[in-house]
Amino acid sequence: MRCNHTIHHERHHYGWDNSIDPVISVQPGETVEIETIDASGGQLSEKSHDKDLLSLDFERVNPVSGPIFVEGAEKGDILSINFLEFSPNSQGWGWTANIPGFGLLADQFLEPRLHTWKYDSENPIASLFGSYGKVPLKPFCGTVGLAIEEKGVHSVVPPRRVGGNLDIRDNCAGTTLYLPVEVKGALLSLGDTHAAQGDGEVCGTAIESPMTVQCTINLIKSSHIDYPRLETSGPVTNHFDVKGYKVTTGIGEDLMKAARDAVSGMIDWLAHSTGMPALDAYMLCSVCGDLRISEIVDVPNWTVSFYFPKVVLD
Amino acid sequence: MRCNHTIHHERHHYGWDNSIDPVISVQPGETVEIETIDASGGQLSEKSHDKDLLSLDFERVNPVSGPIFVEGAEKGDILSINFLEFSPNSQGWGWTANIPGFGLLADQFLEPRLHTWKYDSENPIASLFGSYGKVPLKPFCGTVGLAIEEKGVHSVVPPRRVGGNLDIRDNCAGTTLYLPVEVKGALLSLGDTHAAQGDGEVCGTAIESPMTVQCTINLIKSSHIDYPRLETSGPVTNHFDVKGYKVTTGIGEDLMKAARDAVSGMIDWLAHSTGMPALDAYMLCSVCGDLRISEIVDVPNWTVSFYFPKVVLD
Repeated sequence: MRCNHTIHHERHHYGWDNSIDPVISVQPGETVEIETIDASGGQLSEKSHDKDLLSLDFERVNPVSGPIFVEGAEKGDILSINFLEFSPNSQGWGWTANIPGFGLLADQFLEPRLHTWKYDSENPIASLFGSYGKVPLKPFCGTVGLAIEEKGVHSVVPPRRVGGNLDIRDNCAGTTLYLPVEVKGALLSLGDTHAAQGDGEVCGTAIESPMTVQCTINLIKSSHIDYPRLETSGPVTNHFDVKGYKVTTGIGEDLMKAARDAVSGMIDWLAHSTGMPALDAYMLCSVCGDLRISEIVDVPNWTVSFYFPKVVLD
Repeated sequence: MRCNHTIHHERHHYGWDNSIDPVISVQPGETVEIETIDASGGQLSEKSHDKDLLSLDFERVNPVSGPIFVEGAEKGDILSINFLEFSPNSQGWGWTANIPGFGLLADQFLEPRLHTWKYDSENPIASLFGSYGKVPLKPFCGTVGLAIEEKGVHSVVPPRRVGGNLDIRDNCAGTTLYLPVEVKGALLSLGDTHAAQGDGEVCGTAIESPMTVQCTINLIKSSHIDYPRLETSGPVTNHFDVKGYKVTTGIGEDLMKAARDAVSGMIDWLAHSTGMPALDAYMLCSVCGDLRISEIVDVPNWTVSFYFPKVVLD
């Protein structure tokens, strides 16, 4: 694949701000190679330990590389990003953490925990989680978005109508993502690359891993969407599917509580059936288990299910 | 498969009530064949029209066949149900409806609409939705549950900790479902069989279709779970996967609103790209599209995604 531009990982920023100067300008149809750094912004390394999570500077988390100015893009257009390839860092390094105060069950898991992953960067198919499981990998962009119209600096943590920290694990090679443009030039940035994540990213982190991303950028003029859309090129869970799933549920009037109950149920199940500590089960759920809304119509109780792929435990 | 017992479809009840006399008593390990009637309780037929939805008697919806008394089952046990086979009715008849006042977008879709499906009952692989799409089928039990401890009649519409109207589309052949027992004999009933449904069942109905269900019932003594659990025997979406997905999102602080926005976005996308009426798109989403929680940790905004399988439109 011939890339027209390369953005080095030094060219990153924290927070979304439409006054940040673009690092490059591209024509629609061009292909760009973008280096990312990990979601800690380089604060964690292969040598880091649990306690290093307690001194993380949150002003430096979730950097994104960019912004890229797209010629001709204006408010009311759609920017499309076709992801071509994700090349992991040569060390095959990644990390998953339980960061106190962050995550779906932050009230239950108070202690810091850092798990360091090491995968084959030449052939990144799966990676071991201690003695407990082997997680199939599918690299993607956790954060990909455009500058919003409102002035000032906006936190990079929450996703918004223009994208951002979407954490949709199908923003992977082969997918085309559509984002609504709000400012001249669109101002695309991306980062927060993950080697694997389940739907929900329940502990708050995935397999956080710096990568090089190749994508082709296109413009659809005068076509509005309210929120991001995407199209995948094929199956989305076939890396997890082969042995089926363990499924837990949460049932009730509140989707958030039901989601919490479903994930708590899976942590119990995994801990009891494999002997792994509950905190490890929680982190493993984050990188490979899926939160699905099974029904949202049988008033007043909704069913939220958490699917854990059995192939991981094989 | 040798069945030890057959429950005819006349042996059904409305609502959960632990004082209803069992229709049979089985030993753990026995296999049962259960006939179900459709979720309208026989009020709709192949000859029904949109307007018949307006005169539905809601006291007669969602009947379940049973209850089955399981010898030795007591409060604090787990009942396991291994689904062996779902045999559709010989007419290959099913229906999907937008019933006014019911469904995720009931405020947007006010008119009654009934779609009648006709599939090959001998080889039920897919069924046409008018000229708009062809939906892969995967029959399962929408409602399967046990009597609850509290006396009296409890509506069959909402699911509860003992199961019921779970509408988990993976309660299909090959799956084992685990339910917590609250009363002597467990008192298992099931019905509301669906020929296909997506995660969410967003319009409130699936492909509602009477079937015969074969399952083996087992008992796990003195083992507590808070909510239903299940194990699938293999992939759960491979009937939908082959051509990939269109995906829309909803992003915000409220999961319910995000789910509504994601589904609304898909209805818009389908209507614009195929020309199908929005109400048809909504009903089609219900039978084959999936609501997933992509992230539930990037405070304060969650990402809910709706996945529509492109194979349906091919």
